Amino acid sequence: MSLILHNRPHPKADFPIFDPQGPNAGLAYLDSGASAQKPASVIEAVSQFYATGYANIHRGVYKLSATATDAYEGVRVQVAKFLNAASEQEIIFVRGATEGLNLIAHSWGRAHLKAGDAVLISAMEHHANIIPWQILRDQIGIELRVAALAADGGIDRADFTAKLADGKVKLASFTHIANATGAVLPVAELVAEAKAAGALVAIDGCQAIPHRPVDVQALDCDFYVFSAHKLYGPTGTGILYGRLSVLEGMPPYQTGGDMVATVRFDKTEFLEPPQRFEAGTPDIAGVIGLGAAIDYVQSLGWAWIEEHEKILLAYGESVLSKVPGLTLLPAGPERAGIFSFTVDGVHPHDLGTILDHHNVAIRAGSHCAQPLLNEFGLTATARASLGLYNEPEDLDRLVEAIRAAQRMFAPKRA
Amino acid sequence: MSLILHNRPHPKADFPIFDPQGPNAGLAYLDSGASAQKPASVIEAVSQFYATGYANIHRGVYKLSATATDAYEGVRVQVAKFLNAASEQEIIFVRGATEGLNLIAHSWGRAHLKAGDAVLISAMEHHANIIPWQILRDQIGIELRVAALAADGGIDRADFTAKLADGKVKLASFTHIANATGAVLPVAELVAEAKAAGALVAIDGCQAIPHRPVDVQALDCDFYVFSAHKLYGPTGTGILYGRLSVLEGMPPYQTGGDMVATVRFDKTEFLEPPQRFEAGTPDIAGVIGLGAAIDYVQSLGWAWIEEHEKILLAYGESVLSKVPGLTLLPAGPERAGIFSFTVDGVHPHDLGTILDHHNVAIRAGSHCAQPLLNEFGLTATARASLGLYNEPEDLDRLVEAIRAAQRMFAPKRA
Repeated sequence: MSLILHNRPHPKADFPIFDPQGPNAGLAYLDSGASAQKPASVIEAVSQFYATGYANIHRGVYKLSATATDAYEGVRVQVAKFLNAASEQEIIFVRGATEGLNLIAHSWGRAHLKAGDAVLISAMEHHANIIPWQILRDQIGIELRVAALAADGGIDRADFTAKLADGKVKLASFTHIANATGAVLPVAELVAEAKAAGALVAIDGCQAIPHRPVDVQALDCDFYVFSAHKLYGPTGTGILYGRLSVLEGMPPYQTGGDMVATVRFDKTEFLEPPQRFEAGTPDIAGVIGLGAAIDYVQSLGWAWIEEHEKILLAYGESVLSKVPGLTLLPAGPERAGIFSFTVDGVHPHDLGTILDHHNVAIRAGSHCAQPLLNEFGLTATARASLGLYNEPEDLDRLVEAIRAAQRMFAPKRA
Repeated sequence: MSLILHNRPHPKADFPIFDPQGPNAGLAYLDSGASAQKPASVIEAVSQFYATGYANIHRGVYKLSATATDAYEGVRVQVAKFLNAASEQEIIFVRGATEGLNLIAHSWGRAHLKAGDAVLISAMEHHANIIPWQILRDQIGIELRVAALAADGGIDRADFTAKLADGKVKLASFTHIANATGAVLPVAELVAEAKAAGALVAIDGCQAIPHRPVDVQALDCDFYVFSAHKLYGPTGTGILYGRLSVLEGMPPYQTGGDMVATVRFDKTEFLEPPQRFEAGTPDIAGVIGLGAAIDYVQSLGWAWIEEHEKILLAYGESVLSKVPGLTLLPAGPERAGIFSFTVDGVHPHDLGTILDHHNVAIRAGSHCAQPLLNEFGLTATARASLGLYNEPEDLDRLVEAIRAAQRMFAPKRA
């Protein structure tokens, strides 16, 4: 199947890793849920910054430093617009979503939660949205509640509602799209419900941010986190969006340079958000690269990205459903970007290895979501996840390689 | 003055930012203490990784991920050798030295310090080695002791000794080289003394690591931290060395994926060091770049780097001492890489701005070391700091520009 949605060349050509003359020629890359590849414009933005514009930021009195500072702070404004945040003061640069969630737990959590309070997560969370709350549970005695999985692979709405009912939940923290199944949660409705019950809301946007526009004001969430490397940007950088009034009531997380007004040995005064939360020299080049990644995504446009993915998802569900012995994990009412599956008689890790021999890259394992897989009675699945560079041919290649694995492991069936 | 120490071309040519045909032609860059410029080999290593070898690490079953994992873990081995650590398990990748110090304070500190215990720092510390201990003081009641500055700008050895005497100091945490003055601390002697008094020792190596070889086993320290971006490497990456037996007794810092053995909603089991301390997708490309930076530094060799710096320091002290009205902050018995000074009648910020007009880049301000400047009765200095690409001409340009500033601000003197 061939796909041309626009007059524009297919974006795969924008990504050097897929160079047909390069070392990865013919690669069917289906692991964008773990990390996305980078367009040339992002790679070049980072290189050019180091080659012609590099300096440390915020503190230099010379042009190179001032220009670097403007570029870095310009990305903060750009991210604010990208998320439709009310102000760039609400945008904190972190290492990635994991740090963002840890920052919320450590800073907001320790300042505002006490024994007897509850945090509500879903059964579909990545470990990064489970363990920081377990730490608070074990250290300060909060209760960690888990909204159950529905039979269709979505969130059990009745259970979510029930677990908010006693008013003890002070924070609901859940994923926008489940990384192990691709289930899209009805986040706007969940936010409204949680806020009506008096809770703040944090959303793990890692799997959503590359796939659809996010409007934090429309969602009305208090926190939203994502990693740049899943949005076609560099490693080492991510975003914590926080509602300004909430950030203002939070103590610092890491402490050091660039986040203080005055330091004496007896007393230190901290800056306002976002600086309060950015101690030390940040990943300046990574932030510049994130800016280029957002430029790239916006140059394609959400309309193209969403339609492209819709076609790929429909095609993938169609071809995978025809593979005998393949079970696709259910993803509730709506799936985005991810196929998580098992194949009878072939362990996911063996499947991944054989697929690799066919130049098809997927992930096999628990996808940092062991509790969710446990709900399905599994310890591992194979996961194929989509990026905007994927084509239906990549899914054909996936199916062909799965068939080859079946022939190898389960000759009776193939 | 011209300087040719070896047959090898001068390294400035290895750094694209100094391209005589580029936008920064003629730049005298004297702000390497804030951040160093990057050689082409580092920029290229990062670009090439993204262009031909990028994938997320540790969890992929396909070649690209396995190769990326090998490259990332290879840098861990490389860093262990670079620091002469006993094992690569002692090398933890962090965002930078600030995160390294915060990790020590949060993880080791909260697990092992109690009210009444003391942490000993020096009067010369960067804010990143002050505030994390203040937080512990305010939250758990430890005492924060500060070893005084000696009259010559070094550490007051008698005061350091006296503050260890009662055996309450459980950790001594001090800089290897003071970032605001260039004072080299006698770290091996201080470590021996602190350990004899029963304390663990952490060293902030940010300003030392680009200037001299570091042997953590010879130093016998328990922790050593530095930032890659000051060692000619990328932003977003740094190293926390920790003695394995100490790391093994520390709980996790950030939590999430890639640092756990098993996760259930009721209980999570963590991996051993170093994985226990690396939650989430790390700055993979930054680590690759750090590896290239170490390769670059080693290709020049410490003998060349140290001799080159010795010549630059002697030359700088000589030419700066001839500028009337210029006061160089004292740096104790030994100076490394940094000249911090004031000029009568010209505020450091104005000086920095005028120097910038002469294409000379320095820093002006408190250098994230407000308490140290307070000791000198100052709130700001001008600071010129050296990298391996600097030449005596850069210091000539510095002096010429200072003279021009004096003519502008203090016509009587010039």
